[in-house]
Amino acid sequence: MADGVAGTAVRGDRVPRDREKDYTHDMARARRDFARERTGADLEHVGHYSLDPGTLPGNVENFLGVAQVPIGLAGPLRIRGEHARGEFYVPLATTEGTLVASYNRGMRLLSESGGVRTAVVEEHMQRAPVFILDDALAAREFGRWVDEHCDEIRAAAESTTRTGRLTYIGQYQIGPLRFLRLNYTTGDAAGQNLTGKATLAACLWIKDNHPSHPEFMLSGNIDTDKKHSRINMLLTRGRRVVAEAVVKRDALRELMGVDTRELFRARQIQAAGSFLVGSANNGAHAANGLTALFIATGQDVANISESHAGVSYTQLLDNGDYYWSMTLPALVVATYGGGTGLATQRESLELLGCYGSGKVNKFAEICAAVVLAGETSLTGAVLHGDWVTSHDALGRNRP
Amino acid sequence: MADGVAGTAVRGDRVPRDREKDYTHDMARARRDFARERTGADLEHVGHYSLDPGTLPGNVENFLGVAQVPIGLAGPLRIRGEHARGEFYVPLATTEGTLVASYNRGMRLLSESGGVRTAVVEEHMQRAPVFILDDALAAREFGRWVDEHCDEIRAAAESTTRTGRLTYIGQYQIGPLRFLRLNYTTGDAAGQNLTGKATLAACLWIKDNHPSHPEFMLSGNIDTDKKHSRINMLLTRGRRVVAEAVVKRDALRELMGVDTRELFRARQIQAAGSFLVGSANNGAHAANGLTALFIATGQDVANISESHAGVSYTQLLDNGDYYWSMTLPALVVATYGGGTGLATQRESLELLGCYGSGKVNKFAEICAAVVLAGETSLTGAVLHGDWVTSHDALGRNRP
Amino acid sequence: MADGVAGTAVRGDRVPRDREKDYTHDMARARRDFARERTGADLEHVGHYSLDPGTLPGNVENFLGVAQVPIGLAGPLRIRGEHARGEFYVPLATTEGTLVASYNRGMRLLSESGGVRTAVVEEHMQRAPVFILDDALAAREFGRWVDEHCDEIRAAAESTTRTGRLTYIGQYQIGPLRFLRLNYTTGDAAGQNLTGKATLAACLWIKDNHPSHPEFMLSGNIDTDKKHSRINMLLTRGRRVVAEAVVKRDALRELMGVDTRELFRARQIQAAGSFLVGSANNGAHAANGLTALFIATGQDVANISESHAGVSYTQLLDNGDYYWSMTLPALVVATYGGGTGLATQRESLELLGCYGSGKVNKFAEICAAVVLAGETSLTGAVLHGDWVTSHDALGRNRP
Amino acid sequence: MADGVAGTAVRGDRVPRDREKDYTHDMARARRDFARERTGADLEHVGHYSLDPGTLPGNVENFLGVAQVPIGLAGPLRIRGEHARGEFYVPLATTEGTLVASYNRGMRLLSESGGVRTAVVEEHMQRAPVFILDDALAAREFGRWVDEHCDEIRAAAESTTRTGRLTYIGQYQIGPLRFLRLNYTTGDAAGQNLTGKATLAACLWIKDNHPSHPEFMLSGNIDTDKKHSRINMLLTRGRRVVAEAVVKRDALRELMGVDTRELFRARQIQAAGSFLVGSANNGAHAANGLTALFIATGQDVANISESHAGVSYTQLLDNGDYYWSMTLPALVVATYGGGTGLATQRESLELLGCYGSGKVNKFAEICAAVVLAGETSLTGAVLHGDWVTSHDALGRNRP
Repeated sequence: MADGVAGTAVRGDRVPRDREKDYTHDMARARRDFARERTGADLEHVGHYSLDPGTLPGNVENFLGVAQVPIGLAGPLRIRGEHARGEFYVPLATTEGTLVASYNRGMRLLSESGGVRTAVVEEHMQRAPVFILDDALAAREFGRWVDEHCDEIRAAAESTTRTGRLTYIGQYQIGPLRFLRLNYTTGDAAGQNLTGKATLAACLWIKDNHPSHPEFMLSGNIDTDKKHSRINMLLTRGRRVVAEAVVKRDALRELMGVDTRELFRARQIQAAGSFLVGSANNGAHAANGLTALFIATGQDVANISESHAGVSYTQLLDNGDYYWSMTLPALVVATYGGGTGLATQRESLELLGCYGSGKVNKFAEICAAVVLAGETSLTGAVLHGDWVTSHDALGRNRP
Repeated sequence: MADGVAGTAVRGDRVPRDREKDYTHDMARARRDFARERTGADLEHVGHYSLDPGTLPGNVENFLGVAQVPIGLAGPLRIRGEHARGEFYVPLATTEGTLVASYNRGMRLLSESGGVRTAVVEEHMQRAPVFILDDALAAREFGRWVDEHCDEIRAAAESTTRTGRLTYIGQYQIGPLRFLRLNYTTGDAAGQNLTGKATLAACLWIKDNHPSHPEFMLSGNIDTDKKHSRINMLLTRGRRVVAEAVVKRDALRELMGVDTRELFRARQIQAAGSFLVGSANNGAHAANGLTALFIATGQDVANISESHAGVSYTQLLDNGDYYWSMTLPALVVATYGGGTGLATQRESLELLGCYGSGKVNKFAEICAAVVLAGETSLTGAVLHGDWVTSHDALGRNRP
Repeated sequence: MADGVAGTAVRGDRVPRDREKDYTHDMARARRDFARERTGADLEHVGHYSLDPGTLPGNVENFLGVAQVPIGLAGPLRIRGEHARGEFYVPLATTEGTLVASYNRGMRLLSESGGVRTAVVEEHMQRAPVFILDDALAAREFGRWVDEHCDEIRAAAESTTRTGRLTYIGQYQIGPLRFLRLNYTTGDAAGQNLTGKATLAACLWIKDNHPSHPEFMLSGNIDTDKKHSRINMLLTRGRRVVAEAVVKRDALRELMGVDTRELFRARQIQAAGSFLVGSANNGAHAANGLTALFIATGQDVANISESHAGVSYTQLLDNGDYYWSMTLPALVVATYGGGTGLATQRESLELLGCYGSGKVNKFAEICAAVVLAGETSLTGAVLHGDWVTSHDALGRNRP
Repeated sequence: MADGVAGTAVRGDRVPRDREKDYTHDMARARRDFARERTGADLEHVGHYSLDPGTLPGNVENFLGVAQVPIGLAGPLRIRGEHARGEFYVPLATTEGTLVASYNRGMRLLSESGGVRTAVVEEHMQRAPVFILDDALAAREFGRWVDEHCDEIRAAAESTTRTGRLTYIGQYQIGPLRFLRLNYTTGDAAGQNLTGKATLAACLWIKDNHPSHPEFMLSGNIDTDKKHSRINMLLTRGRRVVAEAVVKRDALRELMGVDTRELFRARQIQAAGSFLVGSANNGAHAANGLTALFIATGQDVANISESHAGVSYTQLLDNGDYYWSMTLPALVVATYGGGTGLATQRESLELLGCYGSGKVNKFAEICAAVVLAGETSLTGAVLHGDWVTSHDALGRNRP
């Protein structure tokens, strides 16, 4: 297809929709035809799917087909978590060569070291409206009023939801602006929509009942939804999850050809570098494993922006073994709602025993364990010097 | 599937592989069978795909099937860029309700305002090894030596690649550590692998030729690959792309029911909030559109961690129109290599006229234009108060 | 004095001390003599002071004299605060030419615009110990135990202080580490020492009473004392103070030759720049005025590191006037304890009506008002183009 | 003095000035009288000084007296730097009890461990104007034009200064804004004014000679003068200085009762904490020593905001000794200009052999060595548990 084709598309030419039967094979085909006509692009593979378009309302608009993202299977990964217990086979949807192989190697190392301990240590999903007062003093007093009316605000918020619970309201002031950050637990859903709705109800109650009926915006940009931020790292967004393991010195040497002492020395260097450059994660590459897992299991993949943040903390033990932990302070995941119920996504969750009600903490623990596996493997490869070589052999490193 | 199933999987039970015929339908099925047996998960839909497993070496290991991610079609989006010119229909792979509809609305607003101007203003892909010297003084002198031998280092690096060009070497010192950040242009590839290989060659040349033969690590964690960081925002990772538009006051009022004056006032509040909380992006939700576009087109989706960073800069014009720009300082994209050539991914690139050689700047411009469209739509919705309502109607907001 | 002199000083040659009469003119002279002998430096002016050495225990060790830092008088500055009300003359101790003149100009602008409103909107001083548990799960449970035993912990902490009150304990987890951030109000003292002592008592109580008797460190480096940090900006360290004013369009034009419209346009640019580079303050130069005021009034000047952080928030009003606010989220000040009672420092506090008991909020408000004055003046100068010129005429701009 | 007094001061009552004889004892007294009259504050001690008011033009306006800041003498500190060599006695101007004693203890530890190695590894002082172009594309092209005309821009800049040299121009783009960051070496001056003047000349040259004669602001707020920022940490502001030492295991145990192994374990915890909270310094308290040294020696103390940033990097050696480095990436100091030539300030510089021409690198090295001494002492105290105790005995910890 040539550049010019796009250029000649008639302006205002709207994508076909059907008010009544929009989520059908026919309409998907109609849109593929429309697109092909205007751009010359052949959409043959995109049109090949087994999911039922009728399941898609609430997940996508203007459906025309699917992206087929290849899934590789890694594992087994031994986890001794609070919720995730046993050996897991992990579906990773990716197009990046070596990723599955690398995580697989890390899983083996961790499994041979006795497995990964995991725990969800905090849970907060939030919306953060901002109220605009007359001056700073009024904003401070408004904040006190909010504290005093917390129960009524909670009642207003929770009236909109069966599963969401308002836990606390953080307050942050700039000039005459009082940012409220409403923190919720949201059950098995990620909760961004649920908390939006509940927070709107809370804000309307506040606006109605506060003597000055202050103006507000539903988001003052400090949520910070779909964005990495320091407030997320500090105060948790979604779940704060820890994976930790004691890597056996012998296992590391055998599997990766690296000594734990060497690893710990390198750790000092990498931590200093991460600190210097203001990185969102002082570990290696949490985003890789998380993204692959998110795509496979129907997570809101844009949350990788928040979820990839991490703090690695390690110690060299007296016996030469290596304590290695990874804390993910802003892991946003779900086992209910969003894309989790779609055809392939649900199957991937089932592969992990994580589909349905009451599974989200288990899934969060698996996410953290997978990340830790990837940390060990990439770090080992960088130290052993086979990092580039393996990409050359396994990856699309062709130019 | 029950929790217990995973728990009883036999430890060390390896995923089936075949040294010779691993990328085949048969082996994919064998792995699905293996997984089903151990976990009870039915992998029917995962096994439904049209891509040819024989195309997957270099993209995934232990292939067992695909994730089907629904694609919605948004557009047309009018772009008046340096490379992207015309009206574009944009494939967005997502499972999040309202996303396509919201971007679509923003595209209409921008198109009715005369379109989006776009430009790639910088390009740098990097690897950042660290050299370990005896003390700070030696590290400084080492840095000078590197500066003096830049041509030889470049020759060593470029000997490994046809398309990569070493542009400059940034240097950052901590104690006796000299971090080098080798910056490359990488053509149509994202370039992470290419630069890894070239940088290894450069490091080996340095180690061999510098009088003290200093020890190095190929990554000192300041690349910062797959991680948001301040250094990426400042010094660009991948491409620094700008999308800008003059939103017409009347169009905004008609389409979104919001006045530009109100928008600008709100902008002051949101910018202050973003600054306070240390956000990676002072705009609204770049990650949403980018992620959907990345999945559809075979990008390395984990790069959302870097790519979602952004700086929004706006001005209210004298005539009441609204100048709106979004700068993405670390957009990592490709139109060659990685997952771009896979079956559905290639089709989505073709839909944009972006498949193949010499298209990456065009694609980067489209990415930025899409992001800008999403900014206008979500910000408008937040201000107009229909944000929660639309999620309720269109999204999986069921609890 | 030559380099060699320092080089030949005999190693281990200790500075003279006297166990009983160390805080005397004689011992100060003895130390000056000692220093002169070893370094050749003439310490004549350093030995010229009027303070009574007998007042210095608790403020300095090895006293040998004073630095004479010139004080310039700025003002009057009209403040309409909660605690600071009236017109103030402000002592600024500095050696930087134009600083006093510039702040003076800003004070005039603000006074002619009706004065500055000020308010202390939050107060928290903290110590942040870290408890080291066996694993992440134990650390989370430890955190819950702390929540449940808050009253006893408070009692233990407050048993060590008359004025300190433990308000809440923030908790932040990394791996098996549970960082506690104990927040206090500390009356008129800055409170770093008071909170250190109270927190030690709290930690010892916890260690004694928690079933696992966990190990702790009194500081896990997240206080973050004497360091700028995001946690300080978000959660307040010392006092969160706002100064706000409506700058009259005519006054700005007359005094600084700048239009408010131009100012607001420039504001968008400067805010974007500050955001991009990860600045601790998106305003102009809070550190200048604060430092001069801190030195004059006996504050712990090292707290400039925390205190200089700020968030500027502005709006252009419909009538062309300019709403300008500066929020200082981590202002650490005192009117009691530390250096506030020393001879000249006390006089400077008295000049502001801020010496003694119950004055710290008043003083904090003055600090913020002074900062705002400086913001208007420097920003005006940068826009009007006389910034460099004035430094040339008034400053030590001689090379 | 009562609050009301300030309140009743007549508005517009200007501080007395004399166009011809303003820098005299008489005018200083006149201003003290004026202040006393209006506020009731007795300015007896403030009026006690030995400096000659005639030396103050260029350092302060509206001079009325001095702050007497007590100086304690610490040392000897053994330094084996590139420029600072020998044993130094360090004047620390502070009002904070234990500060001098604590640094003194650290100096002893370092001296007994063989001294501190120091080096200035980079030098850059900058001004950062912003040019406003029509759109992003024009801004990019403008940036290329700047690159191509670097020699002429340099000539224009350097025409205004004898000592300043323009080394390179960093460029950072947001939307249509092209921020230039002009980097200079500035000899023995800190150089903020020098670079301001040179940069104005450079900007005027650009505006005159670029075909579009673009508008500019002399500061786009990314300098970032008097503000901590990530760009300063990364790219150096002032000087990047390293102090490093190998602390002897036995010396540490003897002097501080702490084992190096324990220290290294604690280091992992403190580094993780610093990273989590977004601290400007992952060490202990660089600001304390630097501030005291800055006040004593006539530095621009407001630069503590930038200068207190730091990166600590350590390793435990095989023999149990402890390699400890502190890198200060943004140390802004001078031995010429500003307050360095004032009466007491010059004497303190002379005490260090650092007054006058060609001494600034030596002074910078001393600063870093002092900081490292403070790190060892405070960290040792925190670990040994005598931190609070010593403040109680030595400090003003009275409430």
